[in-house]
Formats: sequence, C-alpha cells, structure tokens
Amino acid sequence: MQLLKPFSYSRRFPNIEVIGSAFAGNQGNQDNLIPLSFGFPAPESLPVDKMTAATEAAMQTQGRYALAYSGGAGVNDVINWIKERSKLREIKAKENEILVTAGSSQAIDLVTRTLTDPGDEIWVEAPTFFGALKTFQLAETKLTSFPIDENGLRVDLVEQELSERVKNNLPLPKLMYVIPNFQNPGGVNLSVDRRKRLTELAYEYNFFIIEDDAYVELSFDGTFAPAIYSYGPERVVYLSTFSKIIAPGLRLGWAIGLTEIIEKMRILKIDGLTSVYVQEVTKNLLDQIDMDEHISYLNSLYLSRKNAMVSAIKQYFGNDVTFHEANGGFFLWITFPCHIDTSEFIDAAASAGVSYIAGKHFFLKDEGYNHMRLSFTFCQEDIIEEAIKRLANIYYEYVNSKQIIEGVN
Amino acid sequence: MQLLKPFSYSRRFPNIEVIGSAFAGNQGNQDNLIPLSFGFPAPESLPVDKMTAATEAAMQTQGRYALAYSGGAGVNDVINWIKERSKLREIKAKENEILVTAGSSQAIDLVTRTLTDPGDEIWVEAPTFFGALKTFQLAETKLTSFPIDENGLRVDLVEQELSERVKNNLPLPKLMYVIPNFQNPGGVNLSVDRRKRLTELAYEYNFFIIEDDAYVELSFDGTFAPAIYSYGPERVVYLSTFSKIIAPGLRLGWAIGLTEIIEKMRILKIDGLTSVYVQEVTKNLLDQIDMDEHISYLNSLYLSRKNAMVSAIKQYFGNDVTFHEANGGFFLWITFPCHIDTSEFIDAAASAGVSYIAGKHFFLKDEGYNHMRLSFTFCQEDIIEEAIKRLANIYYEYVNSKQIIEGVN
Repeated sequence: MQLLKPFSYSRRFPNIEVIGSAFAGNQGNQDNLIPLSFGFPAPESLPVDKMTAATEAAMQTQGRYALAYSGGAGVNDVINWIKERSKLREIKAKENEILVTAGSSQAIDLVTRTLTDPGDEIWVEAPTFFGALKTFQLAETKLTSFPIDENGLRVDLVEQELSERVKNNLPLPKLMYVIPNFQNPGGVNLSVDRRKRLTELAYEYNFFIIEDDAYVELSFDGTFAPAIYSYGPERVVYLSTFSKIIAPGLRLGWAIGLTEIIEKMRILKIDGLTSVYVQEVTKNLLDQIDMDEHISYLNSLYLSRKNAMVSAIKQYFGNDVTFHEANGGFFLWITFPCHIDTSEFIDAAASAGVSYIAGKHFFLKDEGYNHMRLSFTFCQEDIIEEAIKRLANIYYEYVNSKQIIEGVN
Repeated sequence: MQLLKPFSYSRRFPNIEVIGSAFAGNQGNQDNLIPLSFGFPAPESLPVDKMTAATEAAMQTQGRYALAYSGGAGVNDVINWIKERSKLREIKAKENEILVTAGSSQAIDLVTRTLTDPGDEIWVEAPTFFGALKTFQLAETKLTSFPIDENGLRVDLVEQELSERVKNNLPLPKLMYVIPNFQNPGGVNLSVDRRKRLTELAYEYNFFIIEDDAYVELSFDGTFAPAIYSYGPERVVYLSTFSKIIAPGLRLGWAIGLTEIIEKMRILKIDGLTSVYVQEVTKNLLDQIDMDEHISYLNSLYLSRKNAMVSAIKQYFGNDVTFHEANGGFFLWITFPCHIDTSEFIDAAASAGVSYIAGKHFFLKDEGYNHMRLSFTFCQEDIIEEAIKRLANIYYEYVNSKQIIEGVN
C-alpha cells in the first residue's frame, strides 16, 4: 500500500455541530430518555394497522408498476391529493406545479440550489428551523436573519433592510425562508397583513419566498390564514409534508411552485422519482383514512399534551420562564432570563433522562442562548409532567451552582 | 399584482437535453412502445407477491418504529446485509463505512459534492452512464473522458494523461468515475490488472475512484473480479443498489467508503435517513428471499433475453453492426458504420413502436453518434425479436433515404 496523502474535501461543509444526539444532550441515559427534543409525532398516531392493507391494495391494483422506476397510477393520485388538499389554503396549483420529494427537507435543498448560487443571500427568521440553516450553509449562501414577534416575522424590518440595501447599492436577497404557521421553534403565526406585505416586497425587490408549511394542519382551533403562496404564486415556493400528519418514516413531502422552477428542481433531484413504492402505498393509505377525522384526532391529542406541558411549566418554573402559548404545531419555545445558557445544563438534563434542543441552534450567530425548544407531541401527559419536573430540578441546581461559582469569583 | 421581473436562476443547470421520453424517441406510439431504452428490470421478476407479507412482518416486529424518523432494527439489518454481501466482492467494510441512499444515483451525487467543489476535475469513461454525467455537470465540475476497450477503461491512457498533467503543472482530477462490471453502456468488464493499476494511480496522484457497481450480481456465468475497492479502500468509494436485483421502485442503494467520507455524505444527505419504512420492509423481504436462488433466476432470465437479442441482431442487421456480447448486466452497445447518426431515426423507430437510447448521450462531447444502447432485460424473447426486426426496417429505410438525399445533393 502506498503512502496516503491528505485529500482536500469540498469546502462546502459548514463548521457546525452535527445534528444528532449531542444536540439534545449526551447518550448517558438513552434508554430512559424522555425526548422533548426532536419533532417526533405521537407514536400511537402512526398508521401501523393500516400499512399492510394499504400495501396489499397497492400490489393488487398497481402490481409490478408499484415496484418499477416510474410507479403506477398512485403516483398521480398522490399529486392529485396534494392539489385538492392545497385548495384549503387557497392554493390553486396544477399537477405540473407540484413535485413530491423525500420529506420537505429535500424540497428545501432542491429549491435553494435551484434559485441560488454560492455567495447569494438568503434571509431567514430568527429563530428558525436548524435543518434549513444547515441546508443554506451547505449551499454556501450568505445568511441574514430578522426577528419574529407574536405575529411572526418582522416584515417591517425586512422592508427597511431591503430599502437600505438599494440605497447603498448592496446585494438583495435571492430567497426569504419563512415558516408562517406554528413557526419552528417560535410557535407563532404570520399575520395576514404581513403575508401580503412580504409578497409585495418579493415582487418589488425580485426575491423568492420559501414558505415552509409543515405544521398548518395542526391548528388546534382549526383556523389558519391563506398561504403566502396564494398572494403571489409567481414568487413563492410552497412546501409541506406527510411527516407530521401521517408518518415521517415514509419520507414524503412536496413543493408547489412555477412550472419552470419545479422542472429545474426535478433535474436537480438526481435520486429520481421519490420512492414510487411508498407513493403507491400512501395513495391507498389516503383512501383508507378519513383525513379530516384523522387531523381532528391528532389535534385533540396534541392540544391535551400541550396543555399538560403548559401546566407543568407553570407549576415547576413559575414566573422564571416565559413562552408564547402556541395554538398548534409541535413546539413550545421557552425563554429563560438573559444570563442563562440552556446548553450548559443539557448534559445534566440528559443524565436525568430529559432531552431538549438548546436555543442557540436556531440562530445564525452567537445568540439565543437563553432559549430552549420543547416538543410536546411524542410523550403522554404524565410523562411530560415528569420530564418538566426533572428539567426544573436540573435547571435550579444549575442556577444555584452558577450563583455559588459566581459568588466565589 | 405587480410587474414580474425576470429572475436569474442558479447557473448550475447544464444545457443538456432533459432525460425522459424525448431521449428515447417521441411519444407517438407510447401504448405499443417496446422499450429497449432504459434499464428496466423484468417486470415478472419484481417481488409483488412478497411485499404484503414483508410489510406485515415489518409492522409486527418493528411496529411504530418503522414509521418514525429513525426506523427500527431493520435499518441496521439492511446495513448488515450489505456488509455481508459485499464480502463476496472482497470488500471488508464496517457498519459506519456504509450509507444507505435513495438509489445509487443519490450516492453518486453525494460523493461528488463531498469530494469536489465547482471547477474541480472529474474523469470518466467514454461512453459512460448519462445520469452520472448529468450529476457531474450539475456539480459544476470539469470533465475529461477516456475510452474503453474489451477490458474496460484504458487505464494506460489515464496514466499517460496524469503524468502529462504533472509535467505541465496542470490540475489533477479529484475523482475518476468507473463502472467496472458490465459497464453501462459498453457491457465490458475492467480487467484485474487494470483495477490494480488504477488504484495505484489513485494513491500516487491522490484522487478518488467512484466504483459504480450496479450490475455485479448480474454475471451470467457467476464470475466477477474483486471490487476495485478491495485494492485500495482509502481511495475508492464503492456504490451499488437494490434496483437491479430486487426492485427500482424501492429506491434503495448504498455507498461504502472511509468513515470521514460517509459522515460528510450523511451531512449532505439533507433528506435524512433513506425511507426507513422501505428499509424495514426490505429487511423482511431479504429474510424471505433466497438471494442466491433469486440471482440465479434473474441471470437465467436475462441470459435468455440477451441471446434472443443477439440472434435477432445477427438475423436482421447481419454484418452491418458490431457489438461486444456482454456476459451480464442489462445492455448491448451497438456500433453502426461511422457516418450513421442513430439520433436521426429515433423518432421513426418510436413511431414504429421501438425505443432505444442514442449513442451521443453517453459521451461528453460531440461523439458517439454511430452507437445505440439496447436494453435486453424488460421484454420477453418474442417481443425482443419483433422489436429488432422493426428497428432494422426503420434503419434500412433511413439508410436508403439518406443515400437518395445524398445522391441528389
């Protein structure tokens, strides 16, 4: 064997922490870990019982087509289901404006690399979904973030910056990434006025909006605003997914946008059609599920879990933390006093059997240390209460030890 | 609605013909089309009967895990199956050196973007798989090609060019893409001597080899050389797939390489774990199939179809074409006289109900016009004979009309 010389890998890999267990505390107590970290759906809501029947139906009706490269009729049926369901959000899309992807994560990647080159600017919310941040970094784009409030993205600040950029002859963004409903992690909804204004800005300053709408169906009171897409289909690419409403293990999401963008995304989607076998089975699953009933089951399940988490936080943390009481989605976004860094007690929490995601991961820069994201969807109410109780113990131990140390110095 | 300004999309999209029906003749006679174009497995070989039972078993043993983000035990079982099966090719890989991907097409994309930046050089065989060419172009790399002969890639010419590059202080390649067994489209196998020499060159000149081994199991006489990987695991990334031996609709392939490369590919694989549901079902399918028996069934099926195609070509084309009689894989690579351009009668062939892929698509530059790729796997023997008969009619009509036109001019 000859001498191995060092090899220089692609420079595209960002210097960020790898998403995984370290993100949510160490593995110390993995078996007994209560996961409040990642956005896992309730296990009991996954359609285990229906998969075999759906597979049997897919094999009977589509047979070998379901296992070939292009699939059978079910592939079009899934597109049609997406098209019809999207009308609820006032999205009127044609079949060739819809692309089925391997989860909406793949859709974010494809639309990013379709609309930007390395060095282009993408604007994001702060805080925002860490997976999207990673995707934008891997695409070697430049990122700028804008705060959110109770009504979502501060579109006024976006407008101000756009106008400053033009005035100073500085580059404009190619893309703005927004999670309009039950924002991840903030839990807030973008107001209708802001949706309209943001779309006007996209036309005026010629950028695209990625509207990541993974959580829209999980509105506990059943209400939601029209999609941003509905105000400007020529400058919005709309993304959603089956992960939160059927099962993440299927890895099926979708993108809706201009045909020319969808066609380019299809070229870039080098893995071919998204598992046509899964699509054929999903089509039959959709035939067997009353979706409105299923959504309302999910929402009553998740509302009850959210309420349990809210009560437990109030009981065990009192007024020491604040949060927006999200009326849907998967998450509560907890704010601690300014001097707290939630990553400093994440390992202690994991040792006590509770995982969460530290706030800093949802930001571009060194900020957000005094936040944490808690997911209320995976665990039952009594487990959630136990987890919050343990988390509070760990937190107050940390605060006390920090005060002692600071007292010594 | 405001005025829509033109938007400049990413410059990464290559100016190549979109892969699709136009590639293999127009849609004029789609219903009656005999497809000799794409590499479709025999429909009767797809495990339609076993899918329902495999799903039932997956749901019973892994239940909700199979539908969650990370899957259950089956995900590791699939990795272990790959690990064990790879030993047949003298590949000794650990679990963390294996990544399951959405077909090997996704693996080509991930390894390319892990090892290269735009502007880097990738060297390829001529002819080679058009999907890989598209991937390399989308990664904005520079491509150089080297001819193949009966023993595969002309490694001597690669060596000569490497040495020229060094002498003239020109850039060296980061990657060399090779299909060593039943090359697509050439049908040839890379000799053991050339495998060894190519690996030595990879160490000496510090480039990686992508070894795309989609067809290795389909060796009609059951023999195959050790993988290139076995001669230099530190400079080879090995790729293979379930598409040709179980079913392409599952979209399951894999990559084997250094842990540090696999880890980077995992970061770049933004769609997360490849459909864990499909992996759980596939694990149960693998339990139910005697793989050696299944492979030997596939090989007897495909050998008989290849023989039918070879006979028909000899009968209908006589000595007007030449080809290497591949002893495995999916394809015959047909060479016509130099002045023939097979893309000129592809639409006429489609109208007569036969599709193929024109030779030019397998090359970087303006060359290969007098070739065509025919796939012998999808159709039964009598259909293959009929297709070759029709193709010959169309070809001789084209030749005659060309002579008449050339006579007039």
